[in-house]
Amino acid sequence: MKATAEVLVPRGFEFSCATAGIKVSGSPDMALAFAPRGAHAAAMFTTNRVIAAPLICGRENLRRSGGRVRAVVVNSGNANCATGKLGLRACADVCRAAAKVAGCKPAEVFPGSTGIIGVPLPADKLIARLPELFADRSASPLAAERFARAIMTTDTRMKVASARLGNATLFGTCKGAGMIHPRLATMLVYLFTDAEVKARQLHALLHDVVHSTFNRINVDNDTSTNDTALLLASGIAGKVKEKEFAAALHEVCESLARQIVADGEGAKHVVNLHIECARSDAEAAQVAKAIATSMLVKTAWAGADPNWGRVLAAAGYSGAAIDPGKVDIFFGQHQVCRRGVAMKFDEPRVHTYLSEPVIDVRVKLGTGRFSATFWTCDLTSEYVHINADYHT
Amino acid sequence: MKATAEVLVPRGFEFSCATAGIKVSGSPDMALAFAPRGAHAAAMFTTNRVIAAPLICGRENLRRSGGRVRAVVVNSGNANCATGKLGLRACADVCRAAAKVAGCKPAEVFPGSTGIIGVPLPADKLIARLPELFADRSASPLAAERFARAIMTTDTRMKVASARLGNATLFGTCKGAGMIHPRLATMLVYLFTDAEVKARQLHALLHDVVHSTFNRINVDNDTSTNDTALLLASGIAGKVKEKEFAAALHEVCESLARQIVADGEGAKHVVNLHIECARSDAEAAQVAKAIATSMLVKTAWAGADPNWGRVLAAAGYSGAAIDPGKVDIFFGQHQVCRRGVAMKFDEPRVHTYLSEPVIDVRVKLGTGRFSATFWTCDLTSEYVHINADYHT
Repeated sequence: MKATAEVLVPRGFEFSCATAGIKVSGSPDMALAFAPRGAHAAAMFTTNRVIAAPLICGRENLRRSGGRVRAVVVNSGNANCATGKLGLRACADVCRAAAKVAGCKPAEVFPGSTGIIGVPLPADKLIARLPELFADRSASPLAAERFARAIMTTDTRMKVASARLGNATLFGTCKGAGMIHPRLATMLVYLFTDAEVKARQLHALLHDVVHSTFNRINVDNDTSTNDTALLLASGIAGKVKEKEFAAALHEVCESLARQIVADGEGAKHVVNLHIECARSDAEAAQVAKAIATSMLVKTAWAGADPNWGRVLAAAGYSGAAIDPGKVDIFFGQHQVCRRGVAMKFDEPRVHTYLSEPVIDVRVKLGTGRFSATFWTCDLTSEYVHINADYHT
Repeated sequence: MKATAEVLVPRGFEFSCATAGIKVSGSPDMALAFAPRGAHAAAMFTTNRVIAAPLICGRENLRRSGGRVRAVVVNSGNANCATGKLGLRACADVCRAAAKVAGCKPAEVFPGSTGIIGVPLPADKLIARLPELFADRSASPLAAERFARAIMTTDTRMKVASARLGNATLFGTCKGAGMIHPRLATMLVYLFTDAEVKARQLHALLHDVVHSTFNRINVDNDTSTNDTALLLASGIAGKVKEKEFAAALHEVCESLARQIVADGEGAKHVVNLHIECARSDAEAAQVAKAIATSMLVKTAWAGADPNWGRVLAAAGYSGAAIDPGKVDIFFGQHQVCRRGVAMKFDEPRVHTYLSEPVIDVRVKLGTGRFSATFWTCDLTSEYVHINADYHT
């Protein structure tokens, strides 16, 4: 089963967006996902010790509602992080006002925020747009796309993926282009299904899929304070086979994760990094992470430079007990390093291969049978420009 | 006691350089430090699992010679790393040939290499220049500077520091501008003294000073395969007080460490990062490292952007159990965050302060009495240009 870029809206969900004036660009900066009959929810949050107000509030709401969600209310342009008690109050005020408009309990509202850290959230601006936001909601694919666009910050395009499971469908959307080095979940990810999945299963499914998709991408090694992944199941389409659902969920999440990397700030190349023949899954992931996050490796991708020595050096300092004398490295079909030593290869041809927008890099550790795939991007001067001037 | 940028050559050491044609630029790429009467040596090496041939060879030579060194022979332009058995043989060949010219044992030669990884070392080219290298040696400051220049790669300036201790002197030189995230020692660091220090003490002194200087700097998070620090004592000037020697050693090493950061590839700003009020030395260092290596923080320095939220977020994901509600952040004299929350501050004035070439950033964790200082630099588009094109 392959995820599709087409938007398939699962039954039991409606979407909308509004412009509250938080983004200076004047683009929509407020989004709603509404489940008229409610939905079972599973959520994961950042492991950063600095946790944004909506995450603290959202976790508490889920606990109080017994894992039921009626409305997801998100704003972009302001992360509501490092905003202290005022930030928590602003978030609670938005939830209470949204619950009033929706006719549900405040605990059934799941809040989200993304954008700059440390600036007070103007709750009034958000609350003023809530009636319009709820009035405009629709179950059309276009409305779901508007949701996907309204949660963007430095993203240059919306990120959506869908999958069909017999009678049921699964739809996911996320945002993220910078501060991407997830450790648990990444930025804002929203997953919707009309399949009937038990609350307990939802958690396990979300945990597994995040581990193998969103936790395996990197743009810039910075773990966000607002990382959130939310999976909602309305149950309207009835039961599905768990294995099939897990497979569809993986497809949708892998697609979204790759879309984040492809839209990485300033990125010109996506690198599918495959670590093979490791002693364990953890070892493969550890080596992958070191290579994927190395600034020297990432700048080499930017220059389409077959500098495999940097790849080997990063594997060497990963902390994994690799044996350099057993390492093989491939750029696409071209082997460039055998048993830790240079191989003769056709440099101009490999340079041409590395100039493609998506490249495959394979590192065989030669010591076991475990493997891991990581998705990363190059480090370009555009990344520097974007981030040297984002705040001011 | 302050280290000086003046070169003071300790008695018992002679220096020279030569051009072997490894660097395409045609600059000197071969350097010699010679101790006619020999010297006690202490050395530290990279913790990277991928270890360059000269480090393997140098460690073995020190073991065989009982920690005595007569000649240090270094080449730049080629790291002799990931070169397999041929690389080890090339290094041994150079040591053997140098010993013959010097009239000492091969084990008394300490080899060093820095430059590109994975390219076979042309030992013949080096061996051919050895007679000239030994013939040209001199105890003049100018000769020591030639040594310092010949070991450079992407460095834009030589790095030297000296200190006087009564009758004795201490001279240090190093190279390094990229692949700087030392974990034990950094790139190539050579320290020379004529003070009489016992071999056992030399090791302890080197270990302590590396921990608090070279292990606390960062340019790009990449730990080199060739990191080496070597401390040589000729003993000619007689005994000195150990405390005074340790203090002088610290001054010289801190000066060299800061010179590396100031010459960081593409760097426009040096950041003196002070972490205070931590629960332990290790916690302070852990938080410092996360902030010093964050790409988002480093790009903010490039833009002189007072984006303290990124600093707080990096502290949050450092792995240290910080309490965000107790964190204060200062840019120079300007406090920008109190107890984890934004403070009103004069943005244009802080921007002007952050535009200076050297800035002080202070993060008070508010939970203890330990502190650590880390030296880091900004991430600019020049860094990307330098590293996207270094190999090809």
